This record gives sequence, C-alpha cells and structure tokens, in this order.
Amino acid sequence: MASNFFGDLFRITTFGESHGSAIGVVIDGCPAGLPISQDEIDAELKIRQPGKSPYTSPRTEKDESQILSGIFDGKTTGAPIAIAIWNKDADSSKYEPIKNLLRPGHANFTYLQKYGIFDYRGGGRSSARETAARVAAGAVAKKLLSHYGIEICAFIAEIGGIAIHEPNLEEPLKLRKKVLANPLFCPDTKASEKMMKAIEKAKEEGDSLGGILQCIAKIPVGLGDPVYGKLEAKLASAMLSLPATKGFEIGSGFAAARMKGSEHNDAFDIDENGQITTVTNFAGGTLGGISTGLPLTFRVAFKPTSSIKKPQDTVDLKGAKKHPFKLPEGSRHDPCVAIRAVPILEAMTALVLADTLLLNRVAKLSDMHK
Amino acid sequence: MASNFFGDLFRITTFGESHGSAIGVVIDGCPAGLPISQDEIDAELKIRQPGKSPYTSPRTEKDESQILSGIFDGKTTGAPIAIAIWNKDADSSKYEPIKNLLRPGHANFTYLQKYGIFDYRGGGRSSARETAARVAAGAVAKKLLSHYGIEICAFIAEIGGIAIHEPNLEEPLKLRKKVLANPLFCPDTKASEKMMKAIEKAKEEGDSLGGILQCIAKIPVGLGDPVYGKLEAKLASAMLSLPATKGFEIGSGFAAARMKGSEHNDAFDIDENGQITTVTNFAGGTLGGISTGLPLTFRVAFKPTSSIKKPQDTVDLKGAKKHPFKLPEGSRHDPCVAIRAVPILEAMTALVLADTLLLNRVAKLSDMHK
Amino acid sequence: MASNFFGDLFRITTFGESHGSAIGVVIDGCPAGLPISQDEIDAELKIRQPGKSPYTSPRTEKDESQILSGIFDGKTTGAPIAIAIWNKDADSSKYEPIKNLLRPGHANFTYLQKYGIFDYRGGGRSSARETAARVAAGAVAKKLLSHYGIEICAFIAEIGGIAIHEPNLEEPLKLRKKVLANPLFCPDTKASEKMMKAIEKAKEEGDSLGGILQCIAKIPVGLGDPVYGKLEAKLASAMLSLPATKGFEIGSGFAAARMKGSEHNDAFDIDENGQITTVTNFAGGTLGGISTGLPLTFRVAFKPTSSIKKPQDTVDLKGAKKHPFKLPEGSRHDPCVAIRAVPILEAMTALVLADTLLLNRVAKLSDMHK
Amino acid sequence: MASNFFGDLFRITTFGESHGSAIGVVIDGCPAGLPISQDEIDAELKIRQPGKSPYTSPRTEKDESQILSGIFDGKTTGAPIAIAIWNKDADSSKYEPIKNLLRPGHANFTYLQKYGIFDYRGGGRSSARETAARVAAGAVAKKLLSHYGIEICAFIAEIGGIAIHEPNLEEPLKLRKKVLANPLFCPDTKASEKMMKAIEKAKEEGDSLGGILQCIAKIPVGLGDPVYGKLEAKLASAMLSLPATKGFEIGSGFAAARMKGSEHNDAFDIDENGQITTVTNFAGGTLGGISTGLPLTFRVAFKPTSSIKKPQDTVDLKGAKKHPFKLPEGSRHDPCVAIRAVPILEAMTALVLADTLLLNRVAKLSDMHK
Repeated sequence: MASNFFGDLFRITTFGESHGSAIGVVIDGCPAGLPISQDEIDAELKIRQPGKSPYTSPRTEKDESQILSGIFDGKTTGAPIAIAIWNKDADSSKYEPIKNLLRPGHANFTYLQKYGIFDYRGGGRSSARETAARVAAGAVAKKLLSHYGIEICAFIAEIGGIAIHEPNLEEPLKLRKKVLANPLFCPDTKASEKMMKAIEKAKEEGDSLGGILQCIAKIPVGLGDPVYGKLEAKLASAMLSLPATKGFEIGSGFAAARMKGSEHNDAFDIDENGQITTVTNFAGGTLGGISTGLPLTFRVAFKPTSSIKKPQDTVDLKGAKKHPFKLPEGSRHDPCVAIRAVPILEAMTALVLADTLLLNRVAKLSDMHK
Repeated sequence: MASNFFGDLFRITTFGESHGSAIGVVIDGCPAGLPISQDEIDAELKIRQPGKSPYTSPRTEKDESQILSGIFDGKTTGAPIAIAIWNKDADSSKYEPIKNLLRPGHANFTYLQKYGIFDYRGGGRSSARETAARVAAGAVAKKLLSHYGIEICAFIAEIGGIAIHEPNLEEPLKLRKKVLANPLFCPDTKASEKMMKAIEKAKEEGDSLGGILQCIAKIPVGLGDPVYGKLEAKLASAMLSLPATKGFEIGSGFAAARMKGSEHNDAFDIDENGQITTVTNFAGGTLGGISTGLPLTFRVAFKPTSSIKKPQDTVDLKGAKKHPFKLPEGSRHDPCVAIRAVPILEAMTALVLADTLLLNRVAKLSDMHK
Repeated sequence: MASNFFGDLFRITTFGESHGSAIGVVIDGCPAGLPISQDEIDAELKIRQPGKSPYTSPRTEKDESQILSGIFDGKTTGAPIAIAIWNKDADSSKYEPIKNLLRPGHANFTYLQKYGIFDYRGGGRSSARETAARVAAGAVAKKLLSHYGIEICAFIAEIGGIAIHEPNLEEPLKLRKKVLANPLFCPDTKASEKMMKAIEKAKEEGDSLGGILQCIAKIPVGLGDPVYGKLEAKLASAMLSLPATKGFEIGSGFAAARMKGSEHNDAFDIDENGQITTVTNFAGGTLGGISTGLPLTFRVAFKPTSSIKKPQDTVDLKGAKKHPFKLPEGSRHDPCVAIRAVPILEAMTALVLADTLLLNRVAKLSDMHK
Repeated sequence: MASNFFGDLFRITTFGESHGSAIGVVIDGCPAGLPISQDEIDAELKIRQPGKSPYTSPRTEKDESQILSGIFDGKTTGAPIAIAIWNKDADSSKYEPIKNLLRPGHANFTYLQKYGIFDYRGGGRSSARETAARVAAGAVAKKLLSHYGIEICAFIAEIGGIAIHEPNLEEPLKLRKKVLANPLFCPDTKASEKMMKAIEKAKEEGDSLGGILQCIAKIPVGLGDPVYGKLEAKLASAMLSLPATKGFEIGSGFAAARMKGSEHNDAFDIDENGQITTVTNFAGGTLGGISTGLPLTFRVAFKPTSSIKKPQDTVDLKGAKKHPFKLPEGSRHDPCVAIRAVPILEAMTALVLADTLLLNRVAKLSDMHK
C-alpha cells in the first residue's frame, strides 16, 4: 500500500533515502495564489539542521531546497509543488562493516523481515532524514495558515526528566521567537541550563537522553471532523509517524486519568468580548474532535537516541548468532533527538491544520454560498 | 470531507445518532470465505453493554445486530457487510429542556459552530453510542485475525490513580478470560477492589473518574508500513478517534522520555527456538513502525465522564449568558467511561490489525507468487 | 480493497444484494444545513421503478427509502446519511435450479472465480438493484446542486439503432419535463415511437435491445481537477461502473477521431453579455478536464439486456461441461436496460458534480478568504 | 483536492510543468524485490519521444530518467520510487506574445478561471509533457506485470477515418513487435500507408487529424472489483485522464447499442484444455467489472491536435475582445496526437492492471493463507 503520503486535501508524498541522491516531497492540493519562495522553505530547513550547538549532531548537513514545480511568478498555481533536497557528501562506506548486524532500536530488522531487502546506508528510508522533506512541506503549509491567522509553536518541555514551567500559550509566534533563541528550543532558560548539563553528561558517557515536546497553536473554531477525522486523531497519527516517538497526549493527557469529572470539565463562560470561551482548557483545544478556538495544546514523547557509543548486544544476521555491537568510528549522532524534532513537530502540525482548514470549507452550506 | 470511515483495505463506514432509528456500519473489503455469524457479533456487543454491574450505567441497551448484507451461507462473499443496530426506547424528551445549554466537556458547542445545526438528542452523532458499530465491525475483524493466530486483549490498567501490576503479556486470549470475569475488566483483583471503592465514592459525590486502558496483541512480524503508515500511527489515530481519550503511548511511552539510550534500547538476542528476539520490549512491539513479532503493547488515557451530577457552570446559547448547568433528572451515565471502553479498544485494535494484515500481503514480490 | 464507495468529499458507500434483506447507501460528506425529505428521495426512486409501461420489466418493486441517520429537523447535520431500501417479496426459489449454470453475459462466473463464493439469488451483489441506492444518494446530491443552479437531464438518444434528433441542451430541467413524460424517457416523440415498435418486436422474439443515453448538465466554470481528476475521467469512471455499460464519450466523442483540428477546435468568442464563450461545443463542456461553463454533454452505450428468453449455450459448473441455458419460467426482465438507466445516469452525474463542486471550494486562495 | 495521483495500492503521483525544471513521478506501493533499471525505464520513454518520423513533431526531446530513490542493488525496496526527467532547452520566449490569448482547444481558459493564475509556458501543467512521467511509471508497472505473465499492446486502430483490420489479439507481445516497427504504431501496413498520406496532407494544410487507439492485454481471471472498482471503470478513468481523449469503449463498445442480446451474449464453452471460455468476446474481457481471462480489449478516441497552423478566432483576455489567433513562428506540434499516445496508453493500462493485481491478492481468504 502506498504509505508515503499524508493528508487528504493538502496532501504530501515524500521520497528518498538517507544516502540516496535526494530526498523530496510533492505537495498536491495547495490552493493556488499563495506567495511562497525558496527562502521561506530554506528558513525552516535551517532550523532543523544540526551542527549549530554542542547539543545536536556535529554533522553539517546544509540543506537547501530546489523547487521543481508548482510555483510560477512567486505564487502557487494549483499544480503539485515538488521540492528536492539533494544529499551531499553522504559517506556510506562506514555502514558496510555493520550491514549484517541488527542495530538496537533501529528498523533494519523489521524492514528486512517485511521487504526482504534493506538499503542499510545511513538507515535508508527509515532514516530521520526523511523529516527534512516534511519540514519543507510544512513551510508551505505554514504560509497558507498564516493567511488565516493560525500560529504554531513547538518547544522542548522536558529532557532527561528536567521539566519546564509551562509558558504562556496565547501567542505562539511571540513565544516562538524566544524558543528559537535558545540552543535547545526551550522557553525556560533555567530549565534549559540544567538540560544542557544533563546532555553533556550523557554525551560523555556515550549515552543519550529522551525528551518531551509540547506544541501549541492558535486556531479558529471548527477545525477537525467528527468520529474518525477528529483533530486529535489526525495529530496523534502525524506525531506517531515521526521517528523515535512513543506517545501523544492532548490537553490534560494522561493526567486526565487521575482527575475527577468535576475537576476536568472546562466550564463554559463569556469572555470580555462577549465570546463563548471556557474557564480552563483541560481539553487542550478540542471537543468532540473539533477545535473550540481555545489554544490547541499537545505533547509528544521521544525516546532517547538509539545510536549510542556505549557497547551493546545484538545479533549477526549472517550467522544468526549473538554479537557485540559498536557504532562505527566517527559516527555522529544527536545526543537527544527531541531537540531537532521541534521544527519537525511544527511542520506536521501545520500539515494537519492545513488539511483540516481546507476540509472545513465544505462543512456547511451557509458557508458555501458565494 | 467524508470522515466517518476508517481503514484502507479493510474499511468501515459507520452511521447513526444516539436517538435516531439505528446506528450501523458497512464493512467494505473483508476477504470472501470468512465464516461469521450474528451470534459472534452479538457476543462482542454484549461485552460493551451497560447495566451489568454497579460500575457502569444502569441503562439497559440490549444491542442486537441485524446483518443486512454481505453474508451468504454463513460466509462473507466479498460484498460489503452492512450491520444495523436499532435504537430502542430512546427517550429524547429529557434533552429538550437543556438543548440550548452548552454541556461542559461535550461536543454540542463545536458541532454547532462547525455545522450550524446539532441533533442534541442524546448527543446525536457525537454520542459514544457510535462505538457499538465499531464493536460489531471489530467482531468481524477479530474473526479474520483469528485465522492468522492474532490475539488481542484490552484491560483496565488504572482507575482514579489506582494502578495494576502488569500481567503476563504473552497470551492475550488466556488473559482475556480473566479480564472478562472481572466487573471492571481488570486483571488485577486486588487493584480492582480498590477501584470499585473509588468508583462508588465518586458516584456518591455525583462525580466521575478517569482511567487508563492497556491493550496487548500477539501479532506476526511485518505489520505496519513505513513513514506515515506506521503501525503506532494507525493505532494512535484509532484510539484518539474514540470519545473521551486524551492520550496514547506505545511500549515505554512517556516514560521513555526519562530513560537513557543504554537503558531503552532493546538488545537483540536469539531465543531457544533459534528465532531473533529482543531481551526487553520497551519498543512495545514495533521498530520503524513495523511489528517485530514481540507483544504489541500500548496504553490509552481516558478522561473522567463529562456527564456528572454535580452542578456546573455553563452558557445559555439563547441569551449567550452564563447559566448553571444540571443534568436532567433520571439521567444515567457511566461513573467511569474507561471501563466500557475495553471492548471498544479491542475492536479498534482489530480493525487496525486487519487492515495492516491485508496491506502486508502486497509488500514483497516473493510473497506474491502463487 | 474497499470498492463499494464513490467520491472523495461527497462520498457514498452502497451495500446490499438483490435478494438480501435490504440495499442501501451511506452518504458521508454532505454539507450541513441542506433541506431534504424522504419524499424527495422517493420521487427519484419512483422514476427508476419498473412496471410502469410495457417497455420495462413487469416486476413491481415499490421502492421506498428509509432514512436511518443524518437528517434532523428536515436538514442534513453533517453526519452520515444512511438510507435503506428494503427488499420485499424477493422470490429466490427460481434461482435454485440454475445456480450451477454460468449465465451468459452475467457476472456469476467472474465472482465465483474471484471470491470462491457467490450469492446467486437474483444476481446477488452484481444485480442492477444496487443502482437504486445510487439513485437515493443522487437525490441528495441533486438537492445540493440545485443550490448552485446546476441542472441535469439524461435521456434516451438511441435504441436498437434508432437515433433521436439532438434536443436543445441549454435548459436541462425544461428538457427533463419532456423526457419524463415519455414512456422511454426519450425527448424525440417520433423516434420514440419507432423505438417502441422495435422493443415490442424484440420482446416477441424473446430477445433484447441495446441503447445509448445522453446526459446534459448546466454547470459553472471550474469544476473538475487537472490530470487524474479531470471531470470527464470521473464521469467515465462513474458511467462504466454502471451495469451493462460498454462505452463513454464526451462532446464529439468517437466522431472527433474523424474530424480535423480546424473543424474540431471550438473558437472562443464573447457573448451578448460580454462573457467568454465558444462558438461551437465539440469539447462537450470541458477543457483540460475542467468545466468551461458551456453545457456539459456526454453519451453512454448500454449493451442489450443479458437475460433473454431465447435459448442459449452455457457451461454447467458441476460437471464443467456444456449445457443449454434457459431462463426460469416467469422470469421478468427489461427488454432494454438502457431505459431504466436514465435516472441512474442522472444520479451518477449528480454524485460526480457534487464531489467536484466541493473540491472546487478549495482551489484558490482568493476564493477562500471569509 | 489532491488530484495528481492515480491508483490505490500501486500509486503514482506526478509533478512538473512543460517548461519548468523537471517533470517526474513518485511511485508509492510497488512491491519490494522487483528488479528494474534506468535502461528499462528509458526504453519506454524512447518510444514516446517525437522526432523519429515525419508523422510526429520534429522536436527532439531526449528524455532520460533519473532515479532518485527506491531502488537499491538493482531492486525495488518497498520505498517510494522517485523518477525525475529534466526539461532541457525549453524555450519559453515564444509563448510570451500569446500569453493573453485563449488558445482554442487548450486549457488556459479553464485553468485561469479555476486558479486565477496559469503557467502559460508550453502549456504548463496542462501540457501532454506530463505523460512522460506516466510512461516512466508504466515501465515499472509493466515489469511487475511481466512476473505474472501479463502482456499489453496498444496500437493505432484508426486515423483520419482510415481503419485497420483488427489483428490477432491472443499474443500482445508478439503483436507489439510488429506495432513498434511501424512509424505510426499501426499493425496494418496497408492501412498505415493510407494514414501516412492523410497525415501529410493535413500537415500541408496546416491542419491536424484525430484517431482511435486500441489496446489489448493478456490477463488472468479475477482482476477488477465489483461496483465502483470495475476494471472498465478504472480503465475509462485512466484513459479519459489523458489529454485529447474524447471517448472510451470496451469490447463491443458503442456497437453494442445496436446489437440484440442473442447476438451480444458471449456463450460459455469449454476449451480444448478443459478450461471455461466464451465462444465470442463482445464483453471485451470482463463480466461484472472483473476480468474473465479472455483478452482484454478496449478503444480510446483522440481528438485532432488542437495546435494547428491554420488561423483561428479567439479572445484576448486583456481586452476581453475577439482576436485572431496564430501559432508562434517555429512552433512544432504533432499533426496527430494519437500516434504518440500509443506508449502512454500502454503505461496507463499497466498502472491500472498493477493496481488491480495487488488488490486481487486480498480478495479471498483461501488465497491468503501462507
């Protein structure tokens, strides 16, 4: 089954392996007339790039997009927007010696079982490099959303057990400035200092850390569809499609399980502008799967990076026997994948919201009369 | 957008409102030649029915399925299987007085905003009654899965903060017998006794409790598709499409965020039968979104029931002003929706697995030669 | 694969066999707020019913719809609209003696090969009875289209080689009145008289006739999507999904193959209202797969009814040997299936147009600003 | 709506404009382990290239594919296969003077109406250049089909009213050799000589000709799905999605409308090998939308090329007034688009058959047991 696409009306299809010639994305369904430039796409790709601090991988992927189609005179035309990101200087030679070893926490075992063949170079299709294509597509989705006043901000909420104080959720773009200024994409400077120390310690030990991301968005009421198209269902699917994710929660999330109805129910109220609102927002911005207009807020759990320098045990496929596993010399990995996931999370959120925004244009007849 | 369907190859479309004439489901894509009877479907529906203990709603919905199509000589024919469950004795009159009040924690606000119209009787389309149609479809999916040795068991893992000791995950159907014998669908008798007391106390206070469900499944290696079709992405979407859910986690879940790579990585090993396995299973049964063959295990958070007897604050739509909210006299609700969600969770899991099982039939050429 | 649905945003899923308990349809994606009644649906079903003239089957199926969901206070709510049509008095006993014979021109051979099982009673799922569900759904689609001034009219253009003079195509609903008044749904009275004689002659001989339907529609500019979503591609798929269809052509159709470019190109012009138009309409109302605003016009070929009283040769599945085939005594079939296909063609056209209309709501940004 | 994809399990998404940097395709869902090389893809592209005879455009597009992903060690891996074909030497300058003129028979009018913007250079997205991407994808589909003994051959059946004698349909690949050896892709040498003269005459007059293509395929029984997934419905959609197509017919096609049931019904018989067959094949290889195992045969009508040298009338968008239209000097167009459509038709047929082949793997339980 085709499984490399995401979205219905605003649909992306991604392609490419870590060490192939290029990765890329085709965006099919973006409305015509949207101004978008390569610079706007590259600006998002830059946020995802490693090598900018000691807390991400020292690799220097300088990702630049090449727009192959769909833009004319600086605007979308309704035709599919194809974007390629070329893989430069991928060195596959160091994967040669470990190609018969199952890598703990990695997908080569399951890909081999399912497909009987695996492009082991840099993780092939299962590599997180695929997420660069999502970020490129997300840049286009964000631009579309900006026309509707929709704002998104993802940030580090916890690393290695060190949690932040939750920031103000009302103005995502304002918060985003603060987040982008922090080397860990963390809005709580004090917490981030502790996190940095924890990361440094893990690096020294040849180990890695997990983390939790939070994402907030300012969105209008009415996004999301009943039953199987609930906004949180789409977000959960989008988030669990990201490498290394282990969990998703919206609003109160797992904490809701320990609350009483009288605590958890968000009482309706009238705000100073006469608009309906709720006093609290344990719901996290949706009711019945449809956005309430209050801040959308959800969290995503990331496991610690699977590629660690510490020696591990594994199995050699050739002899089907136990074997010690050690990463090749010179391997460069993120000590905490959660950090670089921040722009990726935003991209997936933007893709979900763009799709639900378009879908919401055909929800009721009274909206549809010209 | 059509949003009332789920699945690609094994696809269900559900319909119906809480107080309409019927709810139902059309299953499109079930392979031909599968023996299935109304009794097998009704057996699953019975598990979902309330009124069997003081811990669920005292309503007596006696749900029986009517198979309208797709079965001939006791077997599926490849044609769509339509199943209706008739709504008997729905009393809509008590919803009349509260039809202009926004119900805290409920979807009438967002449905009205999105659609401009709402069938308020019993919650209309947003009612959890829709899940009976999922359970009926799940019974067919389970029957299909049984031909491949796939077993599923969901159970209560936590209510009101009271957690169980995790049971043995190796034999889901054996565990399921124990679970079905417990009035809370809880495999830990000691924990369930404490839960019952907590539920009774909440009921007395006119309040409700949240809970966490766990689901395990015995499945073959290779289910799930890369990138956007990851098994956990489909499961997360399925679970968050259920009413009252606030979170999903697979394997280690949110706890992974507090672990180190050296702890979390499941070392590969060879088992006594010479098969590849892993020493631990923090992954929860998938790597790269594809099943490893180890037990699939995930958890779902449910908020406390929104319908509570305690007085609450809300807004009156007519005057757009604040208003006290009280449930109508004689309203009957579950003190903890998590309990009755157990068979529903199993149904959704079965639907996801049936779909990925069919998709996996066309993954590699060597499997496809006759 | 699920193959019993049609459409993307305005999606129908049909179910049911000829002699099962019911056939029906679930419409998923109809915008909320559309007034629709059972009477409006039944009015369309009535047009499809046989037994109203000597030129259709003498059976008396009195099809009445039962709306199971999705309508509240006389309006659509955005929830799926399920409609059941109950099969009354189906007599399956006469199919018993021929259940092991392949019926020439029928689908029992291919269904048996594909599925290994076949509900032979009345043709099971392959029966044209399924089209009643399409007509019910088409009634809802037509109602939606009427809000946008879209009009549809199908009619008999040829039976048994007798062709009509093409009527005025500008006002489909006006033409439709004339068409519905004719027992063959034919707008050319003289031609229809000849057709009636030809049908009577074929009936006497125990034989059947084929025919060609034409359909016209008044639609706005912009419907249909480039490349694979071309309006004519969707219409062709819709029409060839109907039983007994052998061909589809839009505008000039197969005659275009015998024309020169200088004849076939429709020259652009300015009409009396200053609007862009074309002098001719060989295109049939689309260019590049998108509607021009000129009359949409296409034709569909129907083979002669496969069920004929004349003796035929076939194969007995039990012995896998040749066998004479004769319809059971008392079998009642249409001498020309094309006639009753008229309302079905309109229904499929309405379903295609409703879907493309909704899709066109998200084509360009300037249309989407509130 | 995303409308640039085709297929469900074997899905292609194409992108690119005539004068953009590249056109291309992403194939998502091809089973893993299929050997395929760039040479095999380029061999198909070469058949589509113009400039090889006086009967096609004198342009010299030397199309070569670049495989960007999805192939490893010469085999498909299950990952999406992205293929780019770079646009070299496209000269957009000559489109500048006519950018405000509606081109008769072309899509710039409807694209502008729908999207408000149009990439007029070489027809932009509406150019037939997009079909090169289909041919590249079709090469992969054909390779897959070859593993199941499926053979396809398309050919010219009629040009300018000159029809061929129908060739033997039993061995498509044998016929194909003959077809590829003819400059018009026509299996009837005598007819093709007359066609060549007609084309030369039309060229001299600055005019163009239409034509009819026939396609035959050797396929197993069981392909295609009931109701909306009928094989002929998918083929019709595929064919009408091609530029310049006006009609589709399967088997007897429109001629069926003039036949009697006793003539048209294909009597079942037992062949010399004891297999069930039919004496005639008016059906064209399907019954009830599912393949019978007899030769699949259908025809597609193409209009005459819209770009002609003869002067025409049109409208100037700037002044919204009538205006004479003349192609720019040096414009090079095919005098009959039907000829170069031959490999494209084969590609679309292969894509439909690959998809239905995969879908048929999950039709019945008895096929699915390992």
